[in-house]
Amino acid sequence: MLKSTFQTLTWLEENRSLRLLDQRYLPTEELFFECRSLRQVAEAIKTLAVRGAPAIGVAAAYGVVIGVQEATTVENSITTQKFSAIIDELAATRPTAVNLFWALARMKKVGEGGLKKGLDGTQLRDLLLTEAHRIYAEDDQAHRRLGEYGAKLIPTGARILTHCNAGALACAEYGTALGVIRAAQTAGKNVKIYADETRPLLQGSRLTTWELLKEKIPVTLICDNMAAHCMAKGMIDLVIVGADRIAANGDTANKIGTYSVALAAKAHNLPFYIAAPTSTIDFSLAEGSAIPIEERDPDEVRFFGKKQTAPSEVAVYNPAFDVTPAALISAIITEKGIFTPAELSAARESTLKVES
Amino acid sequence: MLKSTFQTLTWLEENRSLRLLDQRYLPTEELFFECRSLRQVAEAIKTLAVRGAPAIGVAAAYGVVIGVQEATTVENSITTQKFSAIIDELAATRPTAVNLFWALARMKKVGEGGLKKGLDGTQLRDLLLTEAHRIYAEDDQAHRRLGEYGAKLIPTGARILTHCNAGALACAEYGTALGVIRAAQTAGKNVKIYADETRPLLQGSRLTTWELLKEKIPVTLICDNMAAHCMAKGMIDLVIVGADRIAANGDTANKIGTYSVALAAKAHNLPFYIAAPTSTIDFSLAEGSAIPIEERDPDEVRFFGKKQTAPSEVAVYNPAFDVTPAALISAIITEKGIFTPAELSAARESTLKVES
Repeated sequence: MLKSTFQTLTWLEENRSLRLLDQRYLPTEELFFECRSLRQVAEAIKTLAVRGAPAIGVAAAYGVVIGVQEATTVENSITTQKFSAIIDELAATRPTAVNLFWALARMKKVGEGGLKKGLDGTQLRDLLLTEAHRIYAEDDQAHRRLGEYGAKLIPTGARILTHCNAGALACAEYGTALGVIRAAQTAGKNVKIYADETRPLLQGSRLTTWELLKEKIPVTLICDNMAAHCMAKGMIDLVIVGADRIAANGDTANKIGTYSVALAAKAHNLPFYIAAPTSTIDFSLAEGSAIPIEERDPDEVRFFGKKQTAPSEVAVYNPAFDVTPAALISAIITEKGIFTPAELSAARESTLKVES
Repeated sequence: MLKSTFQTLTWLEENRSLRLLDQRYLPTEELFFECRSLRQVAEAIKTLAVRGAPAIGVAAAYGVVIGVQEATTVENSITTQKFSAIIDELAATRPTAVNLFWALARMKKVGEGGLKKGLDGTQLRDLLLTEAHRIYAEDDQAHRRLGEYGAKLIPTGARILTHCNAGALACAEYGTALGVIRAAQTAGKNVKIYADETRPLLQGSRLTTWELLKEKIPVTLICDNMAAHCMAKGMIDLVIVGADRIAANGDTANKIGTYSVALAAKAHNLPFYIAAPTSTIDFSLAEGSAIPIEERDPDEVRFFGKKQTAPSEVAVYNPAFDVTPAALISAIITEKGIFTPAELSAARESTLKVES
C-alpha cells in the first residue's frame, strides 16, 4: 500500500512534543514546527501551519497531551478546571471543521475519566497520549479503508478535479480525497489530476501539487475560476473533494469554492464526490445552513505573502468555507462505505453510529 | 456626467507617443509607460500594461500611427508592404479580443486608402492619427451611451457582482461593465459592488477596486471562488461583466472565470448581463466555440509577482478567457441598445450593422 513520503504530524516522545510539517512554507521550503506548549499547538492550528479537518483533530488531541504536561504541578497533579481550560483553548482555534470538536470530545471523556479515578499528572498524560495515538491510528486506517471504497468509483484513466488539499497533508497519513486518488493509482487506474489552486491560501497550488508530485501522480494546476471551463472543454471526468463538516442531510461544508465547483459539475453532468471519515459527520445539525462558517483576516485576500495585491483600504469578505447542498453531491465516501446523502441520513442510527 | 479621475491612454502629440497608465503596477504604484516605438506598443499589449478589449483596440490604433512614424523614410515615404507589416505585428499581440482586429481593420482601410492616393509619410501619419483619435472618441461615446442604457436595468440599491476589470482602465475613458455602474451611480442608484479578484493576474483586486475606490463607489473584494457562496447567502442581486468577443449567436468570450460566475448566477436565478460596444461582436463567427482562446505563460499561475506559489515543475493550464453560452446571458448591453442573445442575431443585418 502506498504510504506518503512525508510525515504531516509526528509525536516526538523524547521531546514530549508534536512536530508538524509547517504547511505555511510549502512548496518552496520544507520546514518543521515543533510544538512544545499548548499555545504553540493552538497557534499552529489557527495559522494553518497544520490544516485539513482530520489533521486538525489529530493535532488537537496531541495538544491536549501537551497542555496536560504543562499544567501538571510539581506535586504531579492537575485540576479538573485546568483540564477543561486546555480543551476550551483548543476548541476556540477554528470553528468549522467538526473533527476538531470530535477529537476533543474523545480526549475530554478519557481525561475526565482519568481524573475521576484519581490518576496523577503523569498517569493522566500517559492515558491521554495513548488516546491521541489511537486517534492518529484510527484516522490513518479510516482513510485507507475510505480510499479502497472510493477507488472502486474511479474509472481507469479518469481525469479528476480536486479543490483545496484533502491529502496526507490534511490527515494523519493517507488523505481523504487524495486517499481515494492514491488507492486508485495503487490499483493501476492511471488517473490524472487537475488541482484548483484554492485562493486565498493556495492549498491546491502549494500543497496538493507538492504532494502529488512526491507521489508521481500526474497533476495539472489551474486557477479556481478555470474549473468550469475545463469541464466545458471535456477535460474532467469527475470531482472529489474532502469535507470539514457534513450535516445530517448530507449538506457539506468544505473549503471556499467547493460549492462553485459542485454547481459546475452539476451543469456538466459530472459525478461530484465527497471523501471524508465518519468523524466529519455532525448528526446534531439537520442541515448545512447551521454549520458555522469561519471568516478570516481580509489581508489574506489583499496580500499574497508580503506582496500587496489590492488597495489597503478596500473592504474584503473572506469566508474560509462554503456549504454544498446535498442535491449536488453524488456520493459521500467514508471508511464505512459509500452513501448517497439520502442513505447517509437513513444510516444515522445504524451503520454510521459514531463513537464519541 | 461622471468622468474617470485618471487617464488610461493619452496621445502626447509633442512626443508623438502614446502614454499608458501602466496597469502592471497598480494598485500600489501609479506609473506611466510611454510608447515611442511600434515594438513598445506591441509589448505593452502583450504584457498587459494596457488591457481590456476596447483599450487594446484604441492602443493598437495609435500603435499604427507610431509604426508609420518609425517606418517613414528620410524621403518621407512608406511602402504598402511596410504598412502591412505594422498591422500584422499589432494583430499578433493577443488573439481573443476582437476589438483589436476591428480597430486594425479600420486603420488598415484608412491607411491603404491614403497610400493609394499617393500620400507622403507625413500626410499618411496625420490621416491615421485622425482615425485613431476618432476610434478613441467613438469608444468613449459608445461606452457612455451603453452606460445610460444599462443603468436602466439596475434597481436602486442593487448589489452587483463583476469579474475582471471592464472599467475606464479597460477602455478609452468610461468603461463597459463599470460604465453601467458609473451611470447607475450618477443616476443616484446607490449601488454596491462585489469585485472578483480574477486570478491569475488579479485585474479585479488590482484594477477594479482601485478604480471604484477612486470613484467612491462602495466595493468589496472577494476571491473568484467566493462568488457562488455570496449568491447563496443572498448578497448579490445581479452580475455585469464585459466581453472580449461575442459570436453571432450571443456566446461571449470574456476573462477566464466568467463562465463559472454565469453558471452560478443561473443556479441562483440572478440576471447576468454582458456590457460591450458593438465593436466586440464578431458576426463572422456563428458560435462561441470558434473564438480563439489565448493560453498564457504557466508562471502566471505558478508565481505571484516574484513570489513562487507552486512547485516549479508542476504542469499548468492557463487559458486567459472562457466562453459563456448565450443561454446563460440575460442581455447584452451595447451603445445601440439592449439585446437578448436571440435579438442580437436577429439585429445583425439592421440595427447592429457594424462599420468596418
